Amino acid sequence: MIMNMKISDLGEFGLIDRIGRTAVRSTKRAPIGIGDDAAALLLSPSAALLATTDMLIEGVHFDLKTTDLYSLGWKAAAANLSDIAAMGGMPRFCLTALGIPSSLTVEQIDEFYLGLSDCIRKQRTVLVGGDTCASRKDFVISVTVLGEADRKRVITRAGARPGDLIYVTGTLGDSAAGLELLKAGVRSRKPGVRRLIERHLRPTPRVAEGRKLALSGLASAMIDVSDGLSSDLGHLCVQSRAGAEVYADRIPFSNELTSIKGLEQQPFEYALSGGEDYELLFTSPVEREREVMSLRIRATVIGAVTRRMGMRMVTEKGEIRPMAPAGYDHFRSGRGRGSSR
Amino acid sequence: MIMNMKISDLGEFGLIDRIGRTAVRSTKRAPIGIGDDAAALLLSPSAALLATTDMLIEGVHFDLKTTDLYSLGWKAAAANLSDIAAMGGMPRFCLTALGIPSSLTVEQIDEFYLGLSDCIRKQRTVLVGGDTCASRKDFVISVTVLGEADRKRVITRAGARPGDLIYVTGTLGDSAAGLELLKAGVRSRKPGVRRLIERHLRPTPRVAEGRKLALSGLASAMIDVSDGLSSDLGHLCVQSRAGAEVYADRIPFSNELTSIKGLEQQPFEYALSGGEDYELLFTSPVEREREVMSLRIRATVIGAVTRRMGMRMVTEKGEIRPMAPAGYDHFRSGRGRGSSR
Repeated sequence: MIMNMKISDLGEFGLIDRIGRTAVRSTKRAPIGIGDDAAALLLSPSAALLATTDMLIEGVHFDLKTTDLYSLGWKAAAANLSDIAAMGGMPRFCLTALGIPSSLTVEQIDEFYLGLSDCIRKQRTVLVGGDTCASRKDFVISVTVLGEADRKRVITRAGARPGDLIYVTGTLGDSAAGLELLKAGVRSRKPGVRRLIERHLRPTPRVAEGRKLALSGLASAMIDVSDGLSSDLGHLCVQSRAGAEVYADRIPFSNELTSIKGLEQQPFEYALSGGEDYELLFTSPVEREREVMSLRIRATVIGAVTRRMGMRMVTEKGEIRPMAPAGYDHFRSGRGRGSSR
Repeated sequence: MIMNMKISDLGEFGLIDRIGRTAVRSTKRAPIGIGDDAAALLLSPSAALLATTDMLIEGVHFDLKTTDLYSLGWKAAAANLSDIAAMGGMPRFCLTALGIPSSLTVEQIDEFYLGLSDCIRKQRTVLVGGDTCASRKDFVISVTVLGEADRKRVITRAGARPGDLIYVTGTLGDSAAGLELLKAGVRSRKPGVRRLIERHLRPTPRVAEGRKLALSGLASAMIDVSDGLSSDLGHLCVQSRAGAEVYADRIPFSNELTSIKGLEQQPFEYALSGGEDYELLFTSPVEREREVMSLRIRATVIGAVTRRMGMRMVTEKGEIRPMAPAGYDHFRSGRGRGSSR
């Protein structure tokens, strides 16, 4: 095996052939996969088609100093699978478009596809097509995931009603703390450190959880936590034309996040504005709390939907503070959009 | 109206809101369009879903010195619509992901979406979602188009049989000649020059033609001419496990291409290796030629499929020459893959 093979040695069509090995050419669900002008795919006749696309650009979304290519492929897929999960859908098909700088080797692209394939395979999703081209400087990744959902069971961001409880799956803030550790160059072998870093590099899309919520009909609205709790809850509130109260002491944190010393911020700060946790944030009528708990999806009540617009945080001491969306804005310097919205 | 508004003045979510104006939020076919985690879309119950994605990167696929933003948006859409056309399908939905450098203004992004919207609207296709992020240097565009086709009428690249005639719609070579004129800075007002440049900047995807071929069942194989006749016919031959003979004097050229003086190459050279014509190249049994002609799709017979592998060009003088795929390779310097494949 030739190591550090340059992509120019393979050529575009050689590289496409190589990528094609991880993609399907023809299956029952994807009678025409990679290798034609477009993929031809089959959905259940009664299903709604779900479609989402995300772009990741080197230097903006990731830094090759703090991620390996396997994790990058995993995460690019996970972000899109998470969007399908947030609609209550089942991901089925994946398409990728890559802009590859000459600094990357064939082995690195192999690693990328290995990570992507491992992530989508766990969710019974297949790679069916894509595009590959050169990029002058930055590695550019665009992933599209197509899924399906029962037409009447698609969960939007818009259905939350005053009085509904607000839930989140798993724990929040781990990813942002993991990124901070990575940036600081912490190479600890402590399981806690490694776990936070892993949560940042290879997040788990909550597909099974979203699916249970869709089938049960218990969620009135849902979104995935990709930009941070304050930002994503803000989207859900705006689209549901409602407000929210969040109880600070209810936000679920991992043992790793609360126990590791030397982090720059408090756990709830990572949760509010950190993003990339890819947990599901959903609302459900208060009288159905017992049913939600019986789904066994590890969800925690963190607040309630209010008629009054805007978001408020109730501190441990019972003080009520305004909560502004504080996620990342791609086109503004630094973080935080303050109260401009 | 504020001119030259910086994207940082709007912010990410302001820009998404602005783009949202050209996209659908909810229609009968797209009950959930832009503005949620994923779009939820409806296809005909018996249809196959077609999916294709393309990436365009500044400095690789386009140069903002030779294209306006409107044309760029148009072409990004057209390239994908053409892929759906080449399967015999109807494009339905479009998703875009943009990586935007700080050098672009809000008005330029508006122009991009205006061009994209005008192109897809002509094909009854709607924008249903996407992603918007910052890019450090290059403007990066990723477009995904979803379409549908009757399950039994999808036309692949793989069905050509020895003896089938090879057809191409429209004329070839205009786009490459138009690019040459643009690069040379030719700013002529002559209709011929403008027409070639327009063919390069705002190509017409042959959706209606592809559709007629699919419904009639006349095409045994089809591909769109995006990389140049020699390269794309090469793909069709490889996938059909057949060869081809092309008659040089049958290749259709526009009057503009043959009459304009001062071009660097011969018309057939632009046709063979130029690419970006977005015409349809298809094959059909010889005994059905009359039926093909009756479709009124302006298609020209340019050769025949052969049992013998490889491609050969029959010159006007009757000489037979080998024809090697000569399209653009993203990862190799210059053009031409020679006979390595």
